[in-house]
Amino acid sequence: MTGIAHRQIVSLMDKFLLDLDRAFSALSDPTRRAIVSRLCEGPKSVTELSEPFDLALPSLLKHVRVLEQSGLVSSEKTGRVRTCRIEPHALQATEAWIHQHIAGWEARLDRLETHIDRMKRN
Amino acid sequence: MTGIAHRQIVSLMDKFLLDLDRAFSALSDPTRRAIVSRLCEGPKSVTELSEPFDLALPSLLKHVRVLEQSGLVSSEKTGRVRTCRIEPHALQATEAWIHQHIAGWEARLDRLETHIDRMKRN
Repeated sequence: MTGIAHRQIVSLMDKFLLDLDRAFSALSDPTRRAIVSRLCEGPKSVTELSEPFDLALPSLLKHVRVLEQSGLVSSEKTGRVRTCRIEPHALQATEAWIHQHIAGWEARLDRLETHIDRMKRN
Repeated sequence: MTGIAHRQIVSLMDKFLLDLDRAFSALSDPTRRAIVSRLCEGPKSVTELSEPFDLALPSLLKHVRVLEQSGLVSSEKTGRVRTCRIEPHALQATEAWIHQHIAGWEARLDRLETHIDRMKRN
């Protein structure tokens, strides 16, 4: 991720602080993560989405609803078919939060290494 | 993140599938995310950690325990002082899961663009 894109996403993320709670919570379930995985391959109808899962349709729809409320997924009904798609910005904002913290931790580690090197030389 | 490091983390992540459930669940709470933020600045005693929070110590310890169970944080008691530190690999594995999916989604988008360009030209 480039620096600018990263900053844009972090500011986007600040705007929707509550969504981050919901996004992480939504991703804490393996079925919901599997739904996200499949939707990253492209939009799918609820029926297509349900194929690999040994789940009753109401249970699947419950998971889809949790993902929709988190902002990670959106869906649209045309006639009798509900099509689900991934919302990449929400997924990126979730990654950005973690990335920002790993980067902070790595920067701290680099400073420590520099400090130790300096101590060794003196 | 480099390609090799990313693959290593993904394989690490596959090994500890359950931890990913717990890691995302742990990060779904704003107080726990704030604890992670502070620990990314360096290890801290529980007392130091509690300073910015308007929380009774047992509540804070409960959050620390959830973070420990998720693998994101570890703690060690020396005498009467419990020191908490971040476990960066767990944080990286959590990021890697999301990163892998965003990358998949972006690759799909690129293929779509190439396809559209080709259609325009013909």
